Amino acid sequence: MVTSNILQSNNKNMKHFDSDYMEGCHPQVMQRLMETNLEQTTGYGSDKYCAEAKRLIAKAVGTDDVDIHFLIGGTQTNSTVIDALLMRHEGVLAAETAHINVHESGAIESCGHKVLTLPSHDGKVCAKELKSYIDNFYADETYEHMVAPGMLYISFPTEYGTLYSKDELTQLHDICTKADIPLYIDGARLGYGLASDECDITLSDLPDLCDIFYIGGTKVGALFGESVVAKKGLLKHFFPLIKQHGALMAKGRLLGVQFSTLFADDLYLKISRHAIELAMLLKKGFVDKGYKLYLDSPTNQQFFVLPNDVMDRLSKTSSFEVWGTRGESETTVRFVTSWATKKCDVEELIAEL
Amino acid sequence: MVTSNILQSNNKNMKHFDSDYMEGCHPQVMQRLMETNLEQTTGYGSDKYCAEAKRLIAKAVGTDDVDIHFLIGGTQTNSTVIDALLMRHEGVLAAETAHINVHESGAIESCGHKVLTLPSHDGKVCAKELKSYIDNFYADETYEHMVAPGMLYISFPTEYGTLYSKDELTQLHDICTKADIPLYIDGARLGYGLASDECDITLSDLPDLCDIFYIGGTKVGALFGESVVAKKGLLKHFFPLIKQHGALMAKGRLLGVQFSTLFADDLYLKISRHAIELAMLLKKGFVDKGYKLYLDSPTNQQFFVLPNDVMDRLSKTSSFEVWGTRGESETTVRFVTSWATKKCDVEELIAEL
Amino acid sequence: MVTSNILQSNNKNMKHFDSDYMEGCHPQVMQRLMETNLEQTTGYGSDKYCAEAKRLIAKAVGTDDVDIHFLIGGTQTNSTVIDALLMRHEGVLAAETAHINVHESGAIESCGHKVLTLPSHDGKVCAKELKSYIDNFYADETYEHMVAPGMLYISFPTEYGTLYSKDELTQLHDICTKADIPLYIDGARLGYGLASDECDITLSDLPDLCDIFYIGGTKVGALFGESVVAKKGLLKHFFPLIKQHGALMAKGRLLGVQFSTLFADDLYLKISRHAIELAMLLKKGFVDKGYKLYLDSPTNQQFFVLPNDVMDRLSKTSSFEVWGTRGESETTVRFVTSWATKKCDVEELIAEL
Amino acid sequence: MVTSNILQSNNKNMKHFDSDYMEGCHPQVMQRLMETNLEQTTGYGSDKYCAEAKRLIAKAVGTDDVDIHFLIGGTQTNSTVIDALLMRHEGVLAAETAHINVHESGAIESCGHKVLTLPSHDGKVCAKELKSYIDNFYADETYEHMVAPGMLYISFPTEYGTLYSKDELTQLHDICTKADIPLYIDGARLGYGLASDECDITLSDLPDLCDIFYIGGTKVGALFGESVVAKKGLLKHFFPLIKQHGALMAKGRLLGVQFSTLFADDLYLKISRHAIELAMLLKKGFVDKGYKLYLDSPTNQQFFVLPNDVMDRLSKTSSFEVWGTRGESETTVRFVTSWATKKCDVEELIAEL
Repeated sequence: MVTSNILQSNNKNMKHFDSDYMEGCHPQVMQRLMETNLEQTTGYGSDKYCAEAKRLIAKAVGTDDVDIHFLIGGTQTNSTVIDALLMRHEGVLAAETAHINVHESGAIESCGHKVLTLPSHDGKVCAKELKSYIDNFYADETYEHMVAPGMLYISFPTEYGTLYSKDELTQLHDICTKADIPLYIDGARLGYGLASDECDITLSDLPDLCDIFYIGGTKVGALFGESVVAKKGLLKHFFPLIKQHGALMAKGRLLGVQFSTLFADDLYLKISRHAIELAMLLKKGFVDKGYKLYLDSPTNQQFFVLPNDVMDRLSKTSSFEVWGTRGESETTVRFVTSWATKKCDVEELIAEL
Repeated sequence: MVTSNILQSNNKNMKHFDSDYMEGCHPQVMQRLMETNLEQTTGYGSDKYCAEAKRLIAKAVGTDDVDIHFLIGGTQTNSTVIDALLMRHEGVLAAETAHINVHESGAIESCGHKVLTLPSHDGKVCAKELKSYIDNFYADETYEHMVAPGMLYISFPTEYGTLYSKDELTQLHDICTKADIPLYIDGARLGYGLASDECDITLSDLPDLCDIFYIGGTKVGALFGESVVAKKGLLKHFFPLIKQHGALMAKGRLLGVQFSTLFADDLYLKISRHAIELAMLLKKGFVDKGYKLYLDSPTNQQFFVLPNDVMDRLSKTSSFEVWGTRGESETTVRFVTSWATKKCDVEELIAEL
Repeated sequence: MVTSNILQSNNKNMKHFDSDYMEGCHPQVMQRLMETNLEQTTGYGSDKYCAEAKRLIAKAVGTDDVDIHFLIGGTQTNSTVIDALLMRHEGVLAAETAHINVHESGAIESCGHKVLTLPSHDGKVCAKELKSYIDNFYADETYEHMVAPGMLYISFPTEYGTLYSKDELTQLHDICTKADIPLYIDGARLGYGLASDECDITLSDLPDLCDIFYIGGTKVGALFGESVVAKKGLLKHFFPLIKQHGALMAKGRLLGVQFSTLFADDLYLKISRHAIELAMLLKKGFVDKGYKLYLDSPTNQQFFVLPNDVMDRLSKTSSFEVWGTRGESETTVRFVTSWATKKCDVEELIAEL
Repeated sequence: MVTSNILQSNNKNMKHFDSDYMEGCHPQVMQRLMETNLEQTTGYGSDKYCAEAKRLIAKAVGTDDVDIHFLIGGTQTNSTVIDALLMRHEGVLAAETAHINVHESGAIESCGHKVLTLPSHDGKVCAKELKSYIDNFYADETYEHMVAPGMLYISFPTEYGTLYSKDELTQLHDICTKADIPLYIDGARLGYGLASDECDITLSDLPDLCDIFYIGGTKVGALFGESVVAKKGLLKHFFPLIKQHGALMAKGRLLGVQFSTLFADDLYLKISRHAIELAMLLKKGFVDKGYKLYLDSPTNQQFFVLPNDVMDRLSKTSSFEVWGTRGESETTVRFVTSWATKKCDVEELIAEL
């Protein structure tokens, strides 16, 4: 059984900054699940709640020229989408640090596809290196003995909390478009990206900046659920593929109920904003005390390099993740906030610094 | 987009007998999800609720000599378990009518495994034919050019609502044991089987009657969730396989909360019993009016052969499934009850016959 | 280690009718391999011999509107072609008795594809049943939960030596065309089909009667090698798929040398004709002595039902295959001729009857 | 259609140093194929020639405690062996530059397995980095979300012509043994490694220095064919896997005939030695004229960095491979010798420098 890489004590008043999926769902979402619980609907997403959620999401992304699908979790969504987009001789380009390359137990390869890695720059890929990869591939006269770059995967925010600027996304998308391969954005934490002060795009920009993306629910207010938004017609025969991947929910309306709640009254962005405010407060707290940033993240994941004695002391009252392995004298750690993080917990943590 | 094979009118007072996954979850389960919603736990099933659910299930199945895992849905569970049990040169034996052979969009094959079919007898496989298949396979001197029978899949109840007797299960299991292949029981509707008057086994008999089975939650009181119960050590490296199959729930405790509720105070069987009582009432209603049974199911799925005019009339006030295609003058239909079916609905339906 | 299902004695003068791949290659083919052995060519089929073979085959099939590829063996060719043609949600329709369904160790499934079976009529599928399968599939409103029929596989001759008439092929192809799925013909023994007196098609009819077929070399004069002939453009990105399937020959010119020899001066059909003449002689021999045909094959595989004492006696001086398992008093057996079978051997066998 | 990355003119007297698979087979091998051509044997490797080849190879590797199998080509062998050795949650460790990672069109991933890359040191992996990879993997508490290192793949010689010393192999094997994962050696050019002056191991050392390796025939004297030599019992159910991978040769005796010829009278090593002598002569020729080595290879692949004008001039009379892409003023090139290279060609090339 896996045990999480987390420093914990038995203190009942422990403050948790381990991850953004420690609670259930936002109370308004739970309320809707309660209210609709005994209603009867048809299955597999053919119900009115899914229809309503799709309508609200189409409105939020600013276009009807998209197909919207609901899946259950992130790895499942990545593996199903990538399997749907790639031909058998193609692989998916991604940063070396990409979730699909590192932390999905080989889900992409188990479907027969190679992950083709690009260098990671704080979790991001660089347009120049992407172009160079594709150009060099086709310049090699033996390219048919190699796996063709068939799509680009990026995460927004990345696994390191960093964001692409609108300009960077535009460059990546242009390269992909010229190479006739789709750009796919893993938005497991999309809300926490969009709510960041450093983010210069909105949700309605995304359909122009990529070919397909997903709006993460699991980490942003839902019990579970990810909403795939694709250029109309891009995903062929996606329904049976969802089923084949074991990603089809019998009671599909659970996803509809959750996403229709999150996308009514802008709830998704509001609760994301809360997480960002607390993340910035937390970062300022560490920086003000003179602790080093591992990198300067504008989103809900914050990385610090702490002296080991400080880390050990903090771990008595807070849980967080050791990033990699414990160093000789100092160690990189990750603190995560979410829609559910309490301000008093962040303040207490800072006070304890 | 799939549309379900269901006769429906727009009548708001429609009674629904289409399937056993039309509602959310049992109110007690929802209550527990509410109560625990804002608690913080670690992810991926490493929480106290999963631990508690495993303890209760081990108690219910009468042995600690099992490994228990929680997955999200049925197709996913079948595909992950079968992939974990088979070697690459092996296939899974199953009735021609088995869910894995017909209604999982090729999920088993997409993992590289062949479904080896046995004749279906109202959904069941026959011990003699199983033995004959295995014997003939190894009697053929070219067997290494063929897919070896690597496990047996059966469903309990079957896709036709039928049940294996204890004696039949014992025979199947003996043959499997002699052939050194595991017997796996798909228990998507396990509760509705165990609660049937015709069932001569209990939950605690199952660990002796097979090598691995799953207790279906989705159709029996949960929002979603299936609990795999395997002989200790049978499933090697199952955790990364769950992840690889996109079947690992970030907020794993949702499965723990649901199953710990269903297996406290015998709730799982109590609510299953309710469905059976109404199914028997419904069957009696049809039979008393002189309608033909398509087959005599002792569980919550009931199959009738109705004159088309009767079917059409009923469909104005009730929804149910056409089984196969509409016949010239009469058609096979399926009516399903569940833990959530209301007695008044069944009575009203009978009155309308 | 597999041992073949063959009755053999240690008699050095044993006559062999076990299969059509017991010898090396036709002497003219061997001669060309010798002559070209120390020439230097580039690899992977980019040489002049492959070019020449393609030119000759295009001429033989009567059109340049085809793509021609060379692979090494039958199972490999089936698995690579089928993988290239199917989308992930699709399966391949085939007779229950099809080689791909029975004797390829799950090669098709190992690539993720389901074999969807049709009834076998002496190895053949029936147009009416094909149409009915496809119609029923799309008539079922839950079809997206099932594997879609994505192509049709037939063998010519079949695994039972039988042939489709031109009319039958036209009907099958029409149904496939209407359903927008390709018809693929496994021609492992194509020569022995075309050379049969009962065959009412020629090689140059095939491009109109199907979408893709392969001309078997392994069983018809070559050491190894199969030549895939596909409608131009049907096989996308086939070169990397051949490589991915381990089916790309470094010294590709070996295939070119062999096929250019077989398709110069009509050698392929001439040597096939020899096998057919001897097969007919052999069949007549058995029939004249009053032995029963298992089925009436017009090609190089002949099936008889022999009294066990006759079978046992023949097995002292001839090798042949027991088809299935030994019966109580009589058993089905298969005798196979090839381009290499000697007339005196057949005459001697008949004399021994 | 792939075109090889080769500079060529139309000069009929062109000398070829492009690769080691430009000719057919060694004349003695061809002679044996001729002599045995019309003999009749059973198929799939159950013949006396395969038995003889296995006996000779067991003798050459110095132990009977091995299982020996014959496959057709390198990519096919790698993909079948790796698929047989790995469990579904495991991947194969290999140098970034490994053939399986770069030049097999994703064959490994198409079977569901991830290639886990280690840094390449002139094509070799380093024991320290291997150990560190494995240690870090299991030190990470989230390792079950990642692909487990399930075996190590190395090539001998490597894709850069370099060799591991006995000491280096011993270290790698020790680490693998401690980690309980097999070490697999791709011996596509094994002969050219063993025949090198710098090689401090013999063929009979290999069974102790790894768990499984293959003896390449395609590049060392055969028309095609690779012989897998595995610790007895390591490869489970390998026969059906060979078939499933399309790697089973109907006329298996072709492999037996070739390998029994190559392993009689030490032919395999004698002809390998010839290639090495010419490679060393060629290297000395370039070095004596002051040209730079790209790296110092002790085997039959030689890499130089040539001024572009020299390269262009040489390409008028010799063919060779540009390694990577043409540089501004100088370019890396590869010259390959083989058992078939003529001394006069090498001398003429040197004279032209």
